[in-house]
Amino acid sequence: MAATLNKLKKDYPWIQTPLIVGAPMRLIALDEIAIEVSRAGGIGFLAAGTDISQTSAHLQKVKASFERQPIKTRDDLLPIGLGFITWGAPLTPSLQLIAQYRPAAIWLFAYKDPDHLTEWVEGVRQASPETRIWIQIGSVAQALETLLLSPDILVVQGADAGGHGLVKGAGLIPLLPEVADSITSGLGEGESKPVLIAAGGIMESRTASAALALGASGVVLGTRLLATPEAAITPGYRNEVLRASDGGQTTVRTKVYDSVRGTTGWSEHYNARGVINRTLRDHEEGLDVEENKKLYEEEVKKGDEGWGFGGRMTTYAGAGVGLVREVKPAADVVREVREGVKEVLGRVVL
Amino acid sequence: MAATLNKLKKDYPWIQTPLIVGAPMRLIALDEIAIEVSRAGGIGFLAAGTDISQTSAHLQKVKASFERQPIKTRDDLLPIGLGFITWGAPLTPSLQLIAQYRPAAIWLFAYKDPDHLTEWVEGVRQASPETRIWIQIGSVAQALETLLLSPDILVVQGADAGGHGLVKGAGLIPLLPEVADSITSGLGEGESKPVLIAAGGIMESRTASAALALGASGVVLGTRLLATPEAAITPGYRNEVLRASDGGQTTVRTKVYDSVRGTTGWSEHYNARGVINRTLRDHEEGLDVEENKKLYEEEVKKGDEGWGFGGRMTTYAGAGVGLVREVKPAADVVREVREGVKEVLGRVVL
Repeated sequence: MAATLNKLKKDYPWIQTPLIVGAPMRLIALDEIAIEVSRAGGIGFLAAGTDISQTSAHLQKVKASFERQPIKTRDDLLPIGLGFITWGAPLTPSLQLIAQYRPAAIWLFAYKDPDHLTEWVEGVRQASPETRIWIQIGSVAQALETLLLSPDILVVQGADAGGHGLVKGAGLIPLLPEVADSITSGLGEGESKPVLIAAGGIMESRTASAALALGASGVVLGTRLLATPEAAITPGYRNEVLRASDGGQTTVRTKVYDSVRGTTGWSEHYNARGVINRTLRDHEEGLDVEENKKLYEEEVKKGDEGWGFGGRMTTYAGAGVGLVREVKPAADVVREVREGVKEVLGRVVL
Repeated sequence: MAATLNKLKKDYPWIQTPLIVGAPMRLIALDEIAIEVSRAGGIGFLAAGTDISQTSAHLQKVKASFERQPIKTRDDLLPIGLGFITWGAPLTPSLQLIAQYRPAAIWLFAYKDPDHLTEWVEGVRQASPETRIWIQIGSVAQALETLLLSPDILVVQGADAGGHGLVKGAGLIPLLPEVADSITSGLGEGESKPVLIAAGGIMESRTASAALALGASGVVLGTRLLATPEAAITPGYRNEVLRASDGGQTTVRTKVYDSVRGTTGWSEHYNARGVINRTLRDHEEGLDVEENKKLYEEEVKKGDEGWGFGGRMTTYAGAGVGLVREVKPAADVVREVREGVKEVLGRVVL
């Protein structure tokens, strides 16, 4: 463990441990949150997602911020990460952005197939050799499949995560240790083991401590960061995150939110977790998807009023949404989770 | 935490901490495993389940064992627990058994409605006032609903658990801390807080350590104990537990296994997690349930050959099934999990 932390601190010299990572939430985690998470000693990710048309502008803002007020980095890399949804993002222009801005890490999510992922990994290594490669996986099978590409980091996503992930999945508690064991036995001689970072249900220090006990070397915050001023979400969305509780009962993994929003392109193996709303209830009662989509499009006009139990606007959020109870700056969230871990682990009496 | 452990050690004087509990798996956790888990310093549960016709005989064997070779107990209670599925078990004869054998704990699972659960709780308190009451819950709502009954223990079951549980659910990582917070704010003045014990995905020391970091005061082993000589399961079932891995992908929560086995009576809110087999695949491909049931009944005749990926015999197991890799005595499992926790938590470098 100590060796792993040393590697992390060498690769990302500005971080403090335990490492807290800001998830590259599509359309939500943009320049502001990435900057704030990294400045607080975490690794902030900027979401390029599937459509990189605005990403250059966001990266420019990040670059300008760290030029004005630098933090310690390595090889002049931009001290944030950049996240891509690989089935949707255009490869060549994405690699051009990576070559131009040289972020410290690239997070690759939702690969079409291993060959396509190989193209991405080799492309990133060529575009910016000093950049570290993070691959998100959600099963033991995916972990073993991506091991051949020698990722620096495997982001292990459990089924409690909000937004997109595998349709079928396990929570982090059984998943992360099994992934750890499998990659240990799956490695060839002399091959180096990727570092495991945990995602899915991590909201505060107890949940972060659990992930570290499982063997993770860092944790990802997604849903928790929705309730920060730096997240690019509307008040309606943010209020619904604050309202929802008992997420095992009030969120669900489904494809219907993608359908009504017209987000096509996700393979059959992926769906997304969101708070149950009228779209979902209508869908379960048999409403035709096209009709549901029309109702959604009408609802969009309502703005913030369109969210909530009776609304139709989508609130992607994880099963731990009930642990999100107040809005606070992203930097404060990162520091509180990090600093709370020591206390939580100290409280465990055996 | 220290006060909670003292309370546990007072209530169950034979235990060692961290507390390891053997789940009352219906038809599987009978006298042998209950005895062995308690003798190893855990709390072994004997499953009465829904049909208590054999339970008296099992309790008699437990009693005889502890008469021959006693362990430290309190108020002459039988140093094991007894688990009931409350929607199915007959109340009056169950209370008679409890009064006669006075087990140290009663675990109540799957209540029909709060009133029916109240009858059980009051009945148990009358039948054996020194016996502690454990109630299993799977959501924040259920935790709050049962709090009024002042259970001694809440068993918090996460969605990764094998066998029966709520259809909708969250993994332990977000669920347990939210339950803990909710009961703290849900308690009236002077009311004492139930102790939380975690179930669902706990297979070995890393997973147990995670649960303790979340705030649990003990952990339940279910699936892990299937691979012990003391579990009352066939070699076919046990081999399938050893074979299955990557449980997020290879197990599923479904009602179809109940349907083909003719286990009716579970409410719409409950289903069960088992390893995917031919019954499930046929069901997903649209095979009529009655036809599927007939095929299951044919398969029963094959005995141990009926299990496996291509078989139809049901392998209830949790999403952590891939962490079960060898058969060993239940007592060894309990000791290894307990003793490993210290090492796991010691490995966490911050």
